Amino acid sequence: MPPAGAAVVALGGGHGLHASLSALRRVVDDLTAVVTVADDGGSSGRLREEFGVLPPGDLRMALAALCGDDEWGQTWADVLQHRFAGHGDMRGHVVGNLLIVSLWEQLGDHVAALDWVGRLLGASGRVLPMALTPLVMTAQIRGVDPAAPDEVTTVRGQVEVATSEGTIQSVALDPPDPAPCPEAVLAVRAADWVVLGPGSWYTSVIPHLLVPDLCRAVVDTRGKVIVVLNLAPQDGETPGFAPADHLAALLEHAPDLRVHTVLADVRSVRDPGSLETAVKEAGARLVLADIAASDGSARHDPVKLAAAYDAVISDD
Amino acid sequence: MPPAGAAVVALGGGHGLHASLSALRRVVDDLTAVVTVADDGGSSGRLREEFGVLPPGDLRMALAALCGDDEWGQTWADVLQHRFAGHGDMRGHVVGNLLIVSLWEQLGDHVAALDWVGRLLGASGRVLPMALTPLVMTAQIRGVDPAAPDEVTTVRGQVEVATSEGTIQSVALDPPDPAPCPEAVLAVRAADWVVLGPGSWYTSVIPHLLVPDLCRAVVDTRGKVIVVLNLAPQDGETPGFAPADHLAALLEHAPDLRVHTVLADVRSVRDPGSLETAVKEAGARLVLADIAASDGSARHDPVKLAAAYDAVISDD
Repeated sequence: MPPAGAAVVALGGGHGLHASLSALRRVVDDLTAVVTVADDGGSSGRLREEFGVLPPGDLRMALAALCGDDEWGQTWADVLQHRFAGHGDMRGHVVGNLLIVSLWEQLGDHVAALDWVGRLLGASGRVLPMALTPLVMTAQIRGVDPAAPDEVTTVRGQVEVATSEGTIQSVALDPPDPAPCPEAVLAVRAADWVVLGPGSWYTSVIPHLLVPDLCRAVVDTRGKVIVVLNLAPQDGETPGFAPADHLAALLEHAPDLRVHTVLADVRSVRDPGSLETAVKEAGARLVLADIAASDGSARHDPVKLAAAYDAVISDD
Repeated sequence: MPPAGAAVVALGGGHGLHASLSALRRVVDDLTAVVTVADDGGSSGRLREEFGVLPPGDLRMALAALCGDDEWGQTWADVLQHRFAGHGDMRGHVVGNLLIVSLWEQLGDHVAALDWVGRLLGASGRVLPMALTPLVMTAQIRGVDPAAPDEVTTVRGQVEVATSEGTIQSVALDPPDPAPCPEAVLAVRAADWVVLGPGSWYTSVIPHLLVPDLCRAVVDTRGKVIVVLNLAPQDGETPGFAPADHLAALLEHAPDLRVHTVLADVRSVRDPGSLETAVKEAGARLVLADIAASDGSARHDPVKLAAAYDAVISDD
């Protein structure tokens, strides 16, 4: 087990952060998730448009990942994750999203509302948004139109960015200097460990480095930065990416970032030598471990990932 | 205080039941609410139509009335009662209704789901539906069309029944023999006290007597039946009704009902003599007490009503 009281902050969004938190809550006592708020699709996108609120979906998913192991935590997590079917107005909406939005309206305080949901779930940790205003992602993408493979186009909106053809050159936020969440900035500055990834690289992991105050906190933190690489390239975001390319993309958006450990799945790295070289050049150490789900999907196994986090953090 | 462990079951719906439960939870340890499920309006009506579920609104309101007095109970009750504004798909929906429907879908068990919401709220009591299938109310109404004041028309749907012009002659349910909630029937049979009213007389109070198994339980119960009269006639349901007319309407729908106590607000009864006579004819005793809200509305004051319940139940 890691040193008692080691404070860990995990930055990300979506399924990648869910997997990371499902692992970290098993081995860390003091855990904070900082979640991207640029989503504009699905239930989150509809609520954002209808009420002008932060997109709640990634926050909800992070909270569900932290739920207690007992019947109470599991039941409320299942309810929060419940998605309405049918053919009416509610179709596709997720109950936890509606609960979070109503708490925001009721309490007028993003962080207090998320803390209330955390208490409901008996969550082993805290979930914070990376910014306090809804954000629009933009990307410079080369080859959106296959007929003009070298043309670079600006694409707006997280869903568009994540699903466009072509190769993402860089991403940015609109507005470029959003109000950060002060509790998130403080948590990163005070952390013993800061975890980036896994997840949709350009739309869930890198966005945190585009919020200036949060990026500065990640760069300046006294904590050690762990980068957890994805298991495979992701269509629309990182097609053809080797493991080292993920690290490079991160450093392009935050050149001053000091990475302490790069964690990758041992069987997903085809050329350990070149990754080792890239990691060393970044001043970090490479840890290869068995962290992939055994079902052959490109997802992390929470129990295996927990063991790897435990080893990385305890070993240091 | 009433005898320790006295079991009280309150039958009703809407704001009347909310007021009654807000009072009873202050003085009763073992409290069960049995709630009408014929509503077809508002958020409940939309969810009923979209998902074919029981209308959750009256159940939610009853649960909110039973919430704990601490910050936890109050906060979750406020969230459950939160109604979305705006101009989109969610407008008018109430978060607690959505939470209840998702628990029904998730657990596949009406009663277990409501018990979970009760636990969330730290509720001082249990909330059960009066039947396990959504019901349609029908009413025989005289003079729906002012041009034909003597014509009796069949009106369908709770909202239509509650808002039509004319005088309600009788109400019925479609289907006429719905599946009762077994836990509700058992609770009524085992109760020390069964409370009917206050509330919308034809659409919230009398419907319970139209569910055959539940009516039989109310008639056969070893407990004592308290009828709490409304403070004023209600447009659409009981225009021009004197207090005694409420009692008469109840007995017309359940002639075998043995009423123990009729509780009425002392200042709302203009002719105590004739009410006294009607109550005696029904074999009951009349208790007049100060139970109206001091704001001049036709609502009961929960604290005053609690004192009256306490006196009625302890005094016996």
